[in-house]
Amino acid sequence: MKAKAKRSLVFVSAFTAGLVLLSSRRIPGQAGGQPVVRLAEIEVETSSLQTYKQALREEIETSIRVEPGVLTLYAVSVKERPNQIRLFEVYASPAAYEAHLKTAHFRKYKLATAQMVTSLKLLDADPVMLGAR
Amino acid sequence: MKAKAKRSLVFVSAFTAGLVLLSSRRIPGQAGGQPVVRLAEIEVETSSLQTYKQALREEIETSIRVEPGVLTLYAVSVKERPNQIRLFEVYASPAAYEAHLKTAHFRKYKLATAQMVTSLKLLDADPVMLGAR
Repeated sequence: MKAKAKRSLVFVSAFTAGLVLLSSRRIPGQAGGQPVVRLAEIEVETSSLQTYKQALREEIETSIRVEPGVLTLYAVSVKERPNQIRLFEVYASPAAYEAHLKTAHFRKYKLATAQMVTSLKLLDADPVMLGAR
Repeated sequence: MKAKAKRSLVFVSAFTAGLVLLSSRRIPGQAGGQPVVRLAEIEVETSSLQTYKQALREEIETSIRVEPGVLTLYAVSVKERPNQIRLFEVYASPAAYEAHLKTAHFRKYKLATAQMVTSLKLLDADPVMLGAR
């Protein structure tokens, strides 16, 4: 249990691109289109929660590693209702977002978790300020 | 309008601490306590929205710049209901979160925006995976 909790706290990041972001202080890809920010509110069947979270972790890890246009994929569970998952997603452009939906790793995740998800709400959002150190 | 939209897309970051985060691939401060992740859902009076967003930007910019324990403050507005603001917040530890609440810049923001906020919902969360490049 402890090992699991620790692993869940890992920030994954693509080091080189991260430097670009930090030094430019702007979202990469901004010149080639507006970034896309999405919020997802997902409810998962409690009995499938661990399996779901593992599939989600793999999907996020792969996306950040292989897709330059996937800038942020933050996934958390609500403490008082742990089967409620919230995602905060930033893509470099609409094209990057569309490309992400067609990747093998995203389609694998969607297929593997389709029966576990009991509710999915997607919200498009506009950045007000994205501050990080 | 264009200038405003551009400014709102700026990622603010504290460069040195960012390097620590990226190279360690873990949330700093983890050894001194578990990180605190919070989600906020804020509804703002439409007539005060621009003033509110400016106050929020200033608060985020200052927090990231001067508080080492404030790791992420992402603020977005929901596209279809722009007076709904969502925050995604990560602090290095409970102590860092408590310290943040006592800072002059946070108290100034709270006081300045108190009459503009019509609804505020705070959710504690646990990270599943925080992926960023």
